[in-house]
Order: sequence, then structure tokens, then C-alpha cells
Amino acid sequence: MSLKNPMLSHHISSQYNEDLQEVNAKFMSMGGLLEQQVTDAIHALLDADISLAVDVQYKEQAVNRLECEIDESLTIILARRHPAAIDLRMVIAMSKANTDLERIGDESAKIAGIAKTLCEEGGSARGFMEARHIGNQVRVMIHEALDAFARLDTEQALKVLRADADTDREYQSATRTLMTYMIEDPRQISRVLNVLWVLRSLERIGDHARNIAEQVIYIVKGLDVRHTSVDEIEKKVTEDTHKEQK
Amino acid sequence: MSLKNPMLSHHISSQYNEDLQEVNAKFMSMGGLLEQQVTDAIHALLDADISLAVDVQYKEQAVNRLECEIDESLTIILARRHPAAIDLRMVIAMSKANTDLERIGDESAKIAGIAKTLCEEGGSARGFMEARHIGNQVRVMIHEALDAFARLDTEQALKVLRADADTDREYQSATRTLMTYMIEDPRQISRVLNVLWVLRSLERIGDHARNIAEQVIYIVKGLDVRHTSVDEIEKKVTEDTHKEQK
Repeated sequence: MSLKNPMLSHHISSQYNEDLQEVNAKFMSMGGLLEQQVTDAIHALLDADISLAVDVQYKEQAVNRLECEIDESLTIILARRHPAAIDLRMVIAMSKANTDLERIGDESAKIAGIAKTLCEEGGSARGFMEARHIGNQVRVMIHEALDAFARLDTEQALKVLRADADTDREYQSATRTLMTYMIEDPRQISRVLNVLWVLRSLERIGDHARNIAEQVIYIVKGLDVRHTSVDEIEKKVTEDTHKEQK
Repeated sequence: MSLKNPMLSHHISSQYNEDLQEVNAKFMSMGGLLEQQVTDAIHALLDADISLAVDVQYKEQAVNRLECEIDESLTIILARRHPAAIDLRMVIAMSKANTDLERIGDESAKIAGIAKTLCEEGGSARGFMEARHIGNQVRVMIHEALDAFARLDTEQALKVLRADADTDREYQSATRTLMTYMIEDPRQISRVLNVLWVLRSLERIGDHARNIAEQVIYIVKGLDVRHTSVDEIEKKVTEDTHKEQK
């Protein structure tokens, strides 16, 4: 994924270009870090790897620092450069997506914490298959949402929105399965409940990936598609593209 | 709580003043709506009031619309008025806090949904005492966070941050209690799990109130106090106040 965004290189002021490219590069590297955090948190859980879990928790601080740095850079751009049109939408979208990335970091750290607890306790791996499955889904979602952001690709963004609807369904079904595990073997309640929290975190990560994808559509089309069904969004984006082509 | 913010009435352009006051009024009325949503969602659960639960779910749409409207107004202010210093911080903080308010709405709707399920199923009210207690705490937190925002009162904001630390502790302890309920009576697992989700939502609502309080400190002091301990924040705010007085 290139750290340089071609859509941002059209300004007369080269300082303006540099500012925007710099914050964009920082945002993309934050995105890459979060993708890794989610991957590592899931591996730490599934492979019972305590040191990897500790590593995820440690890197959470770097995520928090990056969040503050990116917001500071965006504020400076707003104060000095007065961006307009697509540039302003890019700055606003990056500020929103920055919050989502940091929350993905929070959820990853939570998963890592649970991975540590489960490692230390030992015992069965009930619910891990579900966690692996949904974990893979949301990893792909984050990757594709960030890729859509980097390339300002609304088609890719729509793909993420559709995937989120899938993930929500899988999460509902996995929750029901885990509940039957608890009822079948009440001695496992505390353990299965921990896996349930992991699934919940993964589902939240999927929501944040969806939010980032929605911001891509906002940047490119100027459409606020939050709280809108995927079918409706698809219709709006297609109509808008046709209008542009006329 | 006045809907007019005295700190925002110092601009030469009266149109600028009007724009800022208008979005501020919208933000405050959104805050009031969310305070009511949380209160109603908790009542719906505790009083087994299905029609109140349905009402909360219905009003979720109004919350979503307000979120979009506020963000749109903020974007127009950024594009046309190029706010600087405290005005710019106010616009940025309102944009962040707007997201937090909408998430509080999501959590309220989730609680309302669970209230409906529990009503329909009937049965014991295990865990309701904990929900009532934490529910009251977070309702006060939202009220005080919004009040701090309206009056730009950093002392009040600090109070909310301290309350959040309390709520997190109460939440941990309530979770443990509910887990013992499940182990004692596995037939109640599904029901207690639903109450556990309510507690989780309430804890998240507390986090959002905390986020809003942090934004108040950012507006007034220009300090980004996210990811900082309450003691550290208190020290920073006090130092900054002393500096101003010198």
C-alpha cells in the first residue's frame, strides 16, 4: 500500500501538499500498526502465546501516541491551510477514522488481555474455532477498509460494508453456540464467557472497519452514508457515479 | 442548562456567532435527548416497560439524524468561517463528542432491545440491582459531562473523569457477581448473560461520558488529555491554571 496519496497532490502551495501527505502517511502507518495488532491479538489467543499478548498490550501506547499526533497534525492543517472541498472532507474523515483506529487498538488490547488470562488458566479451547473464523473476517475488513482509504476506492469500501453485515450474522450465530457450551458444561462458564468477550471485541472491530469504509464514500462522493443500509448506500453511490458521467 | 454559550459570542461577524450558537444549541439538545434515552432505557429494563423500550428504539433514528446534521453544520463552519484558537478547538471537540453521543444512543438502543427480550421472557430479576446502581452512575456522568461542556467547566470535567474510574471498578465487581449467579443456576445463563450485556453497555456509556469530559479540557486548556491517568490530568490542568494566573 503506497503511503503517498495521488489525490492529495494538486495544490499550488507545496507546503500544503507536504502537510497533507505527511498526515496521510502517518494515518496509513497507524492503519498498518492496527492491522498487525488485531492479527497478533488473535494469534496470541489461538496459539496461547503469552509473549505475543504482552507485546500487543505494550504497543497499545504507540497507538495512543499516534492517535494524538494525527489529531494534532489535522488541527494544524485546519488552522493554517483552511482546506476546502475534497481536502476538507479528507481531513474530517481522517479525524473520524483516527478515532476508529484507536478503538480497534483498544479492542485488540482487550483481546490480548483475555488471551493472557486464558493461557494462564489453561483448559479447553471451546469457542476458539468461532473466534478464528470471525477474527479472519475482521482482519480482512480492516485491510480492505484501509486499502479503500489509501486509494479512495468506493467499490472496495462497499465491499467492506457488505462484509460487516456478514460478520454481524456470524457473530450472532457464534454467540448462540457459545451459550449452549455454557449450559452444557457450567464449570466452563467463566472460560467461555471470556471467549464471548473476544467475539464481542471482534464484532466491534468489524464495526470500526465499516465506519472507516463509510468515510471513504464521504471523501469521494461527499455523501454521509452513516445509518444507511448497504443496499441504500449502493444505490446512492451508483446514482452519484452516473450523474458524474453525464 | 442554557442552550446559548457565552464563550461563543465574541466574534466581529454576527453570522459567525449565529453559526456557532446554532450548532452549539443543536449539540446541547442532542445531549439532552441522549440523557433521556439512557434514563428511559434503564427504566424500561428495571420496570419491565416494553412500550418505553420501543420508544427508545424509535428515537434512535432522531439521534442518528441529529448526529449527521451537527457534523454537516460543523463542516460548513470549517469551510466558510475558518475558525481559529478556541473556536477551532470547540468545533473539533464538538465533532468528537458528537460521535460519542451517537454511540451512547447505540448503547441505549441495545439496552432497550434487551429490556424487550427480558420482558417477553419473564422470570427473575437477578443482576438488576447492579444494573440500577451502575445505570444511575452513568446517567449522572452524562449529565455532568454535558453540563461541563455547556459551561466549559474543567473542574466539573475532572469530576466526570474521576467518576469513570469508579464506574469501571463497580462494573468489574458486578460482572463477578453475575458470573456466580450463572454458575449457581445454569438455567438462568441466557437471562443473566443479557443483564451482563446491559452492564457492558452502561460501562461503555460511562467511557463516552469520560471522552466528552476530556474534550472540555481540550477546548478550555488546549491540552489533549486522552490516554492519561486522572491524577496526571489533574496535575496538568492545575499547572496550566497557575500559569494563566501568573
